[in-house]
Amino acid sequence: MPKTTLSSRNEIMQESPIRKLAPYAFKAKKEGVHVYHLNIGQPDIATPQVMIDAYHNIPPVIEYGPSEGIYSYRLKLAEYYRNVNINVDESNIFVTTGGSEAIIFSLLSALSPGDEIIIPEPFYTNYNGFAVMAGVKVVPVTTTIENGFDLPPISEFEKMLSPKTKAIVICNPGNPTGAVFSRESLQGLVDFARKNGLYVISDEVYREFTYDCKATSILEFDDFEDNGILIDSTSKRYSACGSRVGCIVTRNTELLKLVLKFGQARLCPPSVDQQAAEAALDTPDSYFEEVQKEYRIRRDFAYEELSKIPGVVVPMPKGAFYMAVGLPVDDAEDFARWLLSDFRHNNETTMVAPLAGFYATEGLGSNEIRLAYVLNTSDLKKAIDIIRLGLEKYNSL
Amino acid sequence: MPKTTLSSRNEIMQESPIRKLAPYAFKAKKEGVHVYHLNIGQPDIATPQVMIDAYHNIPPVIEYGPSEGIYSYRLKLAEYYRNVNINVDESNIFVTTGGSEAIIFSLLSALSPGDEIIIPEPFYTNYNGFAVMAGVKVVPVTTTIENGFDLPPISEFEKMLSPKTKAIVICNPGNPTGAVFSRESLQGLVDFARKNGLYVISDEVYREFTYDCKATSILEFDDFEDNGILIDSTSKRYSACGSRVGCIVTRNTELLKLVLKFGQARLCPPSVDQQAAEAALDTPDSYFEEVQKEYRIRRDFAYEELSKIPGVVVPMPKGAFYMAVGLPVDDAEDFARWLLSDFRHNNETTMVAPLAGFYATEGLGSNEIRLAYVLNTSDLKKAIDIIRLGLEKYNSL
Repeated sequence: MPKTTLSSRNEIMQESPIRKLAPYAFKAKKEGVHVYHLNIGQPDIATPQVMIDAYHNIPPVIEYGPSEGIYSYRLKLAEYYRNVNINVDESNIFVTTGGSEAIIFSLLSALSPGDEIIIPEPFYTNYNGFAVMAGVKVVPVTTTIENGFDLPPISEFEKMLSPKTKAIVICNPGNPTGAVFSRESLQGLVDFARKNGLYVISDEVYREFTYDCKATSILEFDDFEDNGILIDSTSKRYSACGSRVGCIVTRNTELLKLVLKFGQARLCPPSVDQQAAEAALDTPDSYFEEVQKEYRIRRDFAYEELSKIPGVVVPMPKGAFYMAVGLPVDDAEDFARWLLSDFRHNNETTMVAPLAGFYATEGLGSNEIRLAYVLNTSDLKKAIDIIRLGLEKYNSL
Repeated sequence: MPKTTLSSRNEIMQESPIRKLAPYAFKAKKEGVHVYHLNIGQPDIATPQVMIDAYHNIPPVIEYGPSEGIYSYRLKLAEYYRNVNINVDESNIFVTTGGSEAIIFSLLSALSPGDEIIIPEPFYTNYNGFAVMAGVKVVPVTTTIENGFDLPPISEFEKMLSPKTKAIVICNPGNPTGAVFSRESLQGLVDFARKNGLYVISDEVYREFTYDCKATSILEFDDFEDNGILIDSTSKRYSACGSRVGCIVTRNTELLKLVLKFGQARLCPPSVDQQAAEAALDTPDSYFEEVQKEYRIRRDFAYEELSKIPGVVVPMPKGAFYMAVGLPVDDAEDFARWLLSDFRHNNETTMVAPLAGFYATEGLGSNEIRLAYVLNTSDLKKAIDIIRLGLEKYNSL
């Protein structure tokens, strides 16, 4: 009897570097060890009360919504964007099931199978998975820890251009690097994309999380109507990662028509989560001020503590809530695994994400990790102490 | 300047035949006309109270859940399946964002780009969209209204077999046909699939909606561990279409490992909806008894009313809440559009889904429509009267 076979996608589909060490963490916890999770961007910040309250008002029948999202939500979202200098209306907005689906639908609609996307690396590792789903190839442009992971010169992008290049994907403010691209360097990218008929798919889910600067949206640039695609999500903004609501925002209405076809196939995004996301738009400014203040304190604290550790390289992140950190080890993944399986301090340990999986170029980032500073400073102190003590022991083994 | 281009998928991606007439309905409503929606499977049945109540208990932070679904939910789901004669445990269950994502992930994992799936037509039209997303080709096997849309003999499947065939997709009980496949005919399909190393992806979201028989699950067959993939969803079972929770159930653990990689990329299904779906598993049997009773009344009523209309062909559906109906017109899509744009009875009209879009073979089903009997009998009567009067007028134009 012939056996069933798996998709060829199995060979190119990577395991999540953020979640792949999870079994080791699970085992440690089973042994009664407390694990500090710096590996994943799951904030401990409370979801805004207006959003929580909106879940209490459920209709008698939880019905399908429109494929493009609930109208009143799209109207109010447009207002939110206009308030942050992004001049759009509801016809430019397509609501998705999280930012994840927004990226998948953008790739499916903007690129044909076999086409290429250029992405500055290290990048949010799940872009790889979305590229596999859409049958497109990721072509990396390398950014470096020494340069604070800033956008490389346009000449680097030019080198990677091929007849199959259809889009550039950026994350700004950046996961996993914490970099925030300046308006000037984005202008260069915009000019390059316009000149070559490329889309720029800009993942801006960390818009509200900047510390010494403001983030510039891809939709703030003129003469870029057809090229600019903004990816957004409620997950981080409202500390509501489990509510799966995101959106695509673009002035390219032809593209949105194709996105709608994909959207109709999957019917609609979660109705109740959308209702809550609409309510979340009424979150008072004071919430964001406090959250930003809290993250700034954590960032400064983590930066300071990490900088003290001999051999550690850490650029000051300007946005999001991640830092990419160079460690004095050869294989940061082995170190991360060892922390979970072998190292305990007061019966506690720390989980981090090895950064190698965030690079597309084989061999890069092997001594780097990503930290999400999503814990309060008291826990951050303990978690970073564990890294420091762990490094001492690991390097003396 | 070169312009951005759309994906080649635009040419093969169909507009939803269920939703494509929506602008005409929208216009009619704007003119103050009441529209009876028989075009979409959005039931008017109340969502179970235990499920609604579960939305009232929101944690202070709406966090990511595990990519494979919340553990306690998977445990309890396994119990549900064992109660309906499907012997699985939580390790066989992967929770998805609706049944839609369950099908997409199954196709992405079971088939390589360019592979083929055989589907009895007419079929749930969104399978087309999922096939485009996964880059696979739909090969139809035709079932007929005269034969009550029953499974064709295996020889028909054999004719469609190619080296690229990797799976058969069925919907049982059937959308859009209302057909329920007998255990014997499924056994034939299972033997055929086993002999040829094919998956059978069985969409069983209407399991609870059968009227003169019981539905047989693909996972009830022995010696079919690697081949059987069950697709499920809470949408119809609990009349909660807007809560996007579904699942893949299979004993093929290698396949599930690949599904997990896709699942990790999109992080997790909606957390709060899962919590509600878990609570929904406590829905009392009396709820389903009443719902089934109500749908049976509607089915019998709609069948009787439609049968009275001269020239109408309507096989008695055995399950789900759809009927495929042959009309005495050449172009049922034109008729459906005309009902919305031109025909009024007491300032009301009816919206139906043209069935041609549910066939993959060009030209088939052009005189057929799908009706969802999701309204109470009093509304159903008015909606079907409009079809009857509409046909009289349309055919005299």
